[in-house]
Amino acid sequence: MPLVRIHVPQGKSAEYRSIISDVIYNTTLTVLNVPEYNRFHVISEHSTTDLVIDPTYYGIHRSENAIIIQITLNEGRATLALKTLYYKALADGLHERLGLRREDVFINLVEVKKENWSLGNGEAQYA
Amino acid sequence: MPLVRIHVPQGKSAEYRSIISDVIYNTTLTVLNVPEYNRFHVISEHSTTDLVIDPTYYGIHRSENAIIIQITLNEGRATLALKTLYYKALADGLHERLGLRREDVFINLVEVKKENWSLGNGEAQYA
Amino acid sequence: MPLVRIHVPQGKSAEYRSIISDVIYNTTLTVLNVPEYNRFHVISEHSTTDLVIDPTYYGIHRSENAIIIQITLNEGRATLALKTLYYKALADGLHERLGLRREDVFINLVEVKKENWSLGNGEAQYA
Repeated sequence: MPLVRIHVPQGKSAEYRSIISDVIYNTTLTVLNVPEYNRFHVISEHSTTDLVIDPTYYGIHRSENAIIIQITLNEGRATLALKTLYYKALADGLHERLGLRREDVFINLVEVKKENWSLGNGEAQYA
Repeated sequence: MPLVRIHVPQGKSAEYRSIISDVIYNTTLTVLNVPEYNRFHVISEHSTTDLVIDPTYYGIHRSENAIIIQITLNEGRATLALKTLYYKALADGLHERLGLRREDVFINLVEVKKENWSLGNGEAQYA
Repeated sequence: MPLVRIHVPQGKSAEYRSIISDVIYNTTLTVLNVPEYNRFHVISEHSTTDLVIDPTYYGIHRSENAIIIQITLNEGRATLALKTLYYKALADGLHERLGLRREDVFINLVEVKKENWSLGNGEAQYA
């Protein structure tokens, strides 16, 4: 854990997508105190038809560069205070590294039990 | 929130996929009372090999047009009664707009805490 | 339920991907005692850029064949003991059928309420 899904508009370079992944990885280490090398990311590209991101909901102006990040992680890994720091650090990091507007970073967390992971070898390493 | 994933068999038109998204959006507004413009959908197309939907499980006869919808939303947004209305309204709406058989609509909800969303700007808007 | 997502590196054959799905289906029946024909799988292929799986985290040596499996299922379907058996049986089965190294099988479970499924027809069959 965590398992990260990253949904990106079609037409960005592989390097651009890799930098998104780098920023999420580094932010997860530094803000959520996850151990080094804990990186399991799935990136998908989508056409305009298939990545539907409202451009104004909640008074936030999103552009055609907006991305969706969904992160599955352990319950208890992040308090509310840490989640708030994490969202900010992700938006700041993506803005600094890629020029992505902070408005264009949509994040969702899904929390699961520690026993819900097998990192390989058919074992429940965190149980 | 909600974040909606829509898995569709390959070979449907972009318009067909957009109408699926429209129906889900409209149903979520009217049945779950979600605010207008709250629309964050990811659509994926899959070959027959890669979208494996059993044609008979639970006595329901599914066709090669069957789709899978997974919706991540806030805990407490929908009571059991509302969920039941929501499933019915989604199946009815997709049937009416696209002729999709009601048997071909598979839905799964994943519930998370309000603090688990950042809608942009690096803030936890619902916390 | 369950809903299974399978993320596979690009370049494997359709048969290879189908065997992964077969192993997961069979293991879910035999270990988790799910009814026959309960099979709803979504398989995606990803380039090396887009499927980022750390090759050493937690002291497990993963290869370029590593896959990620995420399974959404009902709370209470699997005790901790059953989850442990399930992870082992999945890794063993994939190794036996495909020669996939057990280190290359990453699994995550997401648990939801019984009322969170509609298997078709717009009804909440498990509620």
